[in-house]
Amino acid sequence: MINRRQWLQSAAGSAALAGLAGCATPSLLSPATPSTGTGDLGVVVERADGKLAIVNTSRPRVLAEVAGLGDLSHASVVFSRDGASAFVFGRDGALSRVDLLQQRITGRVLQAGNSIGGAISQDGRLVAAQNYQPGGIKVFDAHTLALVADIPAADADGKPSRVVGLADLPGHRFIYSLFDAGEIWIADLADPKSPQLTKFRDVGKQPYDALVTPDGRHYIAGLFGEDGLALIDLWEAQPRARRILAGYGRGEAPLPVFKMPHLRGWAVAGRRAYLPAIGRHEVLVVDTESWTEVGRIPVAGQPVFVMARPDGRQVWVNFAVPDYHRVQVIDTPTQRVVRTLEPGAAVLHLEFTPRGEAVWISSRDANRVSVVATDSFETLAQLPLASPSGIFFTSRAGRVGL
Amino acid sequence: MINRRQWLQSAAGSAALAGLAGCATPSLLSPATPSTGTGDLGVVVERADGKLAIVNTSRPRVLAEVAGLGDLSHASVVFSRDGASAFVFGRDGALSRVDLLQQRITGRVLQAGNSIGGAISQDGRLVAAQNYQPGGIKVFDAHTLALVADIPAADADGKPSRVVGLADLPGHRFIYSLFDAGEIWIADLADPKSPQLTKFRDVGKQPYDALVTPDGRHYIAGLFGEDGLALIDLWEAQPRARRILAGYGRGEAPLPVFKMPHLRGWAVAGRRAYLPAIGRHEVLVVDTESWTEVGRIPVAGQPVFVMARPDGRQVWVNFAVPDYHRVQVIDTPTQRVVRTLEPGAAVLHLEFTPRGEAVWISSRDANRVSVVATDSFETLAQLPLASPSGIFFTSRAGRVGL
Repeated sequence: MINRRQWLQSAAGSAALAGLAGCATPSLLSPATPSTGTGDLGVVVERADGKLAIVNTSRPRVLAEVAGLGDLSHASVVFSRDGASAFVFGRDGALSRVDLLQQRITGRVLQAGNSIGGAISQDGRLVAAQNYQPGGIKVFDAHTLALVADIPAADADGKPSRVVGLADLPGHRFIYSLFDAGEIWIADLADPKSPQLTKFRDVGKQPYDALVTPDGRHYIAGLFGEDGLALIDLWEAQPRARRILAGYGRGEAPLPVFKMPHLRGWAVAGRRAYLPAIGRHEVLVVDTESWTEVGRIPVAGQPVFVMARPDGRQVWVNFAVPDYHRVQVIDTPTQRVVRTLEPGAAVLHLEFTPRGEAVWISSRDANRVSVVATDSFETLAQLPLASPSGIFFTSRAGRVGL
Repeated sequence: MINRRQWLQSAAGSAALAGLAGCATPSLLSPATPSTGTGDLGVVVERADGKLAIVNTSRPRVLAEVAGLGDLSHASVVFSRDGASAFVFGRDGALSRVDLLQQRITGRVLQAGNSIGGAISQDGRLVAAQNYQPGGIKVFDAHTLALVADIPAADADGKPSRVVGLADLPGHRFIYSLFDAGEIWIADLADPKSPQLTKFRDVGKQPYDALVTPDGRHYIAGLFGEDGLALIDLWEAQPRARRILAGYGRGEAPLPVFKMPHLRGWAVAGRRAYLPAIGRHEVLVVDTESWTEVGRIPVAGQPVFVMARPDGRQVWVNFAVPDYHRVQVIDTPTQRVVRTLEPGAAVLHLEFTPRGEAVWISSRDANRVSVVATDSFETLAQLPLASPSGIFFTSRAGRVGL
């Protein structure tokens, strides 16, 4: 803090110190070895072995492997607020807490029969798991893993529903979609003992996945049972669900769909969202104010993950069979593909380092993770890992909706 | 990863597991105490005592104080990539590395006679300090603190210049402004032994501070010697400096200017930037595509810091004398002030927690830092600290331009 007078005085006064300044840099203290923090750590899911590899992104390497995590097909991970613990949601309904520093499991709860993801609250105190069977969500204390709330998902007729698209919202809130009921619910756990539910009915047939935009403002659910998507602007005084992108084209896809795209992979860069077209060799470009399509970018296959580099300058895309050995890079200012990479067969996931200088790419059938520089596209490292799938870095702990 | 067939099978097949699921949550492993990471740590500058307080934001508290940091007036801080070390740039030209876990200084270099800030490279390997005296920038190895490059700042006539507005850019680049020369330079240290310089001449009279937008695309320098600001779109094929906001009004301020606003405090929320008007009781609203003014919001005094909550839903403002006991909150969708707080005399800085559930506010003359919930505006904690000024959290390590 400095006002104009002080500013000029200090600038002038500094001349007096010229002598002292010189150009040498005398060390007043010989540097001691600094501690290592958790800001540059992450995990890679080794799905075939039920293992999690703990990795460091500053000098790309595998620090350890943690086994005994059960069925990790389609596993997802969120991080504790301090970045020291990974909460792993297994397909078998297990919630496991893996300590990145102790390099072991520090807690494990079989919380459902069939599960497919979870979220952690804004303040890091609550971890929520979404369940297919018995449906609904369960909320746990992040520190003790004690059950805090069990919230069934039943439609107006009391019929239980599978839950998908769970994400955190500001406050002690979680938002999620009911596949069977065609509804979107918000659970507010400000008072964990009596969660307050807000229900959006008739949002569309069979929402199958969803995402929250990086600013936490929009919740978007893909519809399995009809064309288009459901959108809720959470900043509206009276939020409501409406349909967007009726031409999104799940139903009338001109090509067979080899893999449903992951909505969580949607990229928002600047004023545009980049979406995987379903069944088409295209990435859709959507305006994030009108939520209408403003362009399509031809790509090498059916896109699965479409992910923005943290600065939004690039969007990276992987593909479904038979093109899943490729990764393409879209330059957002020109809206063109500027690079095609072949990092190894069966590219399943991508994760950018916190400031985006590199991207980690998992190639399941090549049994390796490639670390690629996002400016030169040079391969900086290749890490041998067994059937790697999801990659998650601790920087997610500081972001909304991840 | 799952295709439509698998998806339906798994959803159906999960019914078989219904029995196993039940509603109990048997613990397969009694939870062990998790480690603590560095993702929820930060520092508060205690300027009067040359101390740094190390704080935790999960349960707001002061963990330790580290002394011996010299002149910390106008001090600024950047963090190592792993979040374990804070690099402190003192007004006296000292660069100190403080270890947040060892809670002590692990390196200190007197690198100039008069300094006012620095930056850390995208990959975390280079730390750069900007200097008034002798001018120019010096670049250090973040691990050893050895001098890597000494880059004088001399204009076309060889006259040395004070350097301000230093920020990191993607790649091994730093961008900064030459106050005396009226130039903006980019130093590329891909090869630290021979830095490549790109110089923008005649950007305007006396650039006094600058910022990089959160997406790393735009560099904006405030002009002390004339109205308006200098803008460079770094994504252009041939970046060039141009003037914007000629009516910004430093020169013709209708009120005396009690404190020059901090550009680094500028908020970018959604498609708009919120700027402190100089000398006026207003916050300017600027469109980030055309970089033209689209509105003004009346506030309680001359704004100093205008900062967006991470999700952009709110913008928080503090003020110059005589209104520096107040903080106001702007709701961005409605563009209106929704709250006025009085957290204590001489509010010098604000810092949001990584996901924005709380904001920390330093009140120098009240000798305390207040922690305020951004939804209810309730004061969650008050931490007694001596003359607190700048507040910096480790989540900055994962962001561009901070």
